[in-house]
Amino acid sequence: MGDNKREMKLGAFFMIPGHHVASWRHPESAAEQVQQFDLYKRLAETAEKGKFDMIFFADGYAVNDHHESTIEQTVTVRPDPLTLLSAISAVTNKVGLTATVSTTYNEPFHVARKFASLDHLSGGRAAWNVVTSSRDAEAQNFNKSKHPEHESRYERAEEFVDVVRKLWDSWEDDALQINRTTGRFADPSKVHEVNHKGKFFSVRGPLNVSRPIQGHPVIIQAGSSEAGRELAAKTAEVIFTAWQTLEEAQAFYQDIKTRLVKYGRSKDELKIMPGVFPIIGRTEEEASNKQQLLRELIPEKSGVALLSALISFDLSAFPVDGPLPDLPNIKNINGGKSRFKLLKDLAEREQLTIRQLYQQIAGARGHREIKGTPVQIADQLQEWFENGAADGFNIMPPYLPGGLEDFVELVIPELQKRGLFRKEYTGNTLREHLGLNRPTSTLLVNTKVGKLS
Amino acid sequence: MGDNKREMKLGAFFMIPGHHVASWRHPESAAEQVQQFDLYKRLAETAEKGKFDMIFFADGYAVNDHHESTIEQTVTVRPDPLTLLSAISAVTNKVGLTATVSTTYNEPFHVARKFASLDHLSGGRAAWNVVTSSRDAEAQNFNKSKHPEHESRYERAEEFVDVVRKLWDSWEDDALQINRTTGRFADPSKVHEVNHKGKFFSVRGPLNVSRPIQGHPVIIQAGSSEAGRELAAKTAEVIFTAWQTLEEAQAFYQDIKTRLVKYGRSKDELKIMPGVFPIIGRTEEEASNKQQLLRELIPEKSGVALLSALISFDLSAFPVDGPLPDLPNIKNINGGKSRFKLLKDLAEREQLTIRQLYQQIAGARGHREIKGTPVQIADQLQEWFENGAADGFNIMPPYLPGGLEDFVELVIPELQKRGLFRKEYTGNTLREHLGLNRPTSTLLVNTKVGKLS
Repeated sequence: MGDNKREMKLGAFFMIPGHHVASWRHPESAAEQVQQFDLYKRLAETAEKGKFDMIFFADGYAVNDHHESTIEQTVTVRPDPLTLLSAISAVTNKVGLTATVSTTYNEPFHVARKFASLDHLSGGRAAWNVVTSSRDAEAQNFNKSKHPEHESRYERAEEFVDVVRKLWDSWEDDALQINRTTGRFADPSKVHEVNHKGKFFSVRGPLNVSRPIQGHPVIIQAGSSEAGRELAAKTAEVIFTAWQTLEEAQAFYQDIKTRLVKYGRSKDELKIMPGVFPIIGRTEEEASNKQQLLRELIPEKSGVALLSALISFDLSAFPVDGPLPDLPNIKNINGGKSRFKLLKDLAEREQLTIRQLYQQIAGARGHREIKGTPVQIADQLQEWFENGAADGFNIMPPYLPGGLEDFVELVIPELQKRGLFRKEYTGNTLREHLGLNRPTSTLLVNTKVGKLS
Repeated sequence: MGDNKREMKLGAFFMIPGHHVASWRHPESAAEQVQQFDLYKRLAETAEKGKFDMIFFADGYAVNDHHESTIEQTVTVRPDPLTLLSAISAVTNKVGLTATVSTTYNEPFHVARKFASLDHLSGGRAAWNVVTSSRDAEAQNFNKSKHPEHESRYERAEEFVDVVRKLWDSWEDDALQINRTTGRFADPSKVHEVNHKGKFFSVRGPLNVSRPIQGHPVIIQAGSSEAGRELAAKTAEVIFTAWQTLEEAQAFYQDIKTRLVKYGRSKDELKIMPGVFPIIGRTEEEASNKQQLLRELIPEKSGVALLSALISFDLSAFPVDGPLPDLPNIKNINGGKSRFKLLKDLAEREQLTIRQLYQQIAGARGHREIKGTPVQIADQLQEWFENGAADGFNIMPPYLPGGLEDFVELVIPELQKRGLFRKEYTGNTLREHLGLNRPTSTLLVNTKVGKLS
């Protein structure tokens, strides 16, 4: 079934030194290099060798210090993703570069400029994963005591993205003339103030970087709550999402593609790419052993702390071999609402203790865990891809660089053999890889925007 | 005279595609590449070949659009400097990487993290040029109508730098343990909240990047007003400054080195590096022709606009071949006070018309212009260096990449021959190049800072 020409989109999603909370203890992880460029260079080159659409860095603006054990037993340092991706852009040619940046604790002018700069310097490979942050600890690094409420964060996010897009469009595509003879560097009639005045932002523009190579860097979004779905349907071009079962993923896929219509968008304008945590073995036994080793490496305290953080509820006072206690109503959860529901449902469905639950999720952190031989891994990806659950996947290697190298060496060839994934890049920009159109300027449509006097 | 072992510090200071306002019209400038990585890579490699201490990017947060002619006739786009320097870090090994970032329109947590990230990824080569911005047009891109007053900007800047340093120190040097066997990634007793609460900022910390390789990235500062001098004497490790005459530069040098004592600092802890705009010819005639060509390339309107911007006063209504009109009292100038005084004094001293003044300053923009053969250029640098006016210089090539390549091929060997400049890098970090000590942690001294509970 499916269109012969339809190919998966693949992102390499990096937590460092691996998606599994105990990855740094794995004998083959690069735990000593979590802040060194050599590791990132190797990862990027491997992803490009595997013809990935993009590499993708998560982010947050605070140390995870819910519990002392988190700082002690897990990796709580991570370089700024835009800084990382700029450096990576210099040693790669094709792979897309996705940075997570929050709209809650940033300014649209800076965000527009940094992504526009990266897009120019990388030859059109930048993407922005738009998040709204989730924790009071982040607020407290930015002059606030509490993280703003879910609804107001999403309202701000929508206006933020709107302003950023206007700034990207403040120079028309052909504004730069660079005519030495006439002394005309730019055509001022093609450079526009944006004069945005909204509830959260007042921004004059124009940006001091010309229109990005991609028109707009690709907009990615991860929220799967009601507000998150609406924002995505309105503004996103890729959704990064977390589902455990085919049925849930299909329902989400259907829901989002339907919502697009409301905003006058076609189904192809938004790619849905769930996260997948693959444990790959040359045999089933090798895969199971890898899984078991990683589970055993999780110190109990940091397992409980991770689970507590994921559900925004402190479990440290409850018996680790007992069931989840009664949890608060989801309405009172501020940040990661969909993750909260997913884990609560999983524990109920499979009757898990706290320990069993953290062992299950300490790798995938709520995303789908798939395990097996390369053929079995490919089967599981293909099933979702061909049954209306995904346009592609964000691959979350358990430990790095080995987990990524296994995927590239063992699984990618299997996907290519089945005609499910590209053998060579056919374009240069991330939009070309993802099959997304280069957007026309929002300013040319909106005649209310002023011109420079 | 002078100590035999004392060597100049040299920065390559980049406006793109050259410091001269008409550089982009020069037949050998890379005007078409102002947003392309290839140009920056070439510049950085050339600077490293020349054994420069650092490359240095200015910055601003608005298009220069005082006049339509500025957008039309000058280069008003420039990539974000941190994005640029991260990319450059990946293709260089030794040269220092200095980015200008304003304290008026940023948050300390982001700034601390970005520079800490760059410092780790580059192996200890990051420096921050601290500025407070200068224009209403920048304010208007960040939800404000007016640029804040000089005094309050400097007050904010001082607190900002203080918070950034605390965040850099929030992880002790040996906080990372990375012991796979015990499961201890970090020692939580060596990771500290900063709990800063001041007039402008409230920041909890710790940072989510460990202590930078250099301890602190190098702090550079450019203000030469009274408030700027005090801030520099208290916090800076390099001063980037603008002087036209030996006497002025000596007086400034003496003044700053004396102020250091008040803050318990030694004279070696702060390097004074004035900007220098060199026009280099293999013969005097070639140098004069180069100067004349650049002057002729300046369109009249953009010359007047540049001068207006530099003195924060609109000159477009006055006859271009007449004298400067009566200017406002310096007290009413908000931003670039010392530049205002310097240009006013220059016009009076040399009895210049508006056109003559803009032609004189359109290259150096208020910095010292030196012209001549490599020997003459070296003489002029040596004179200031050996007579208490400078510890080194920020070299501002008129057009790029040619102006930098001339300096590296023609002037650097002359300086090396005289024993005034290094022939090889002897260290790896920017601090090592500059002869600056690695700072001890501010937090270890300040016992009031809380530990994590």
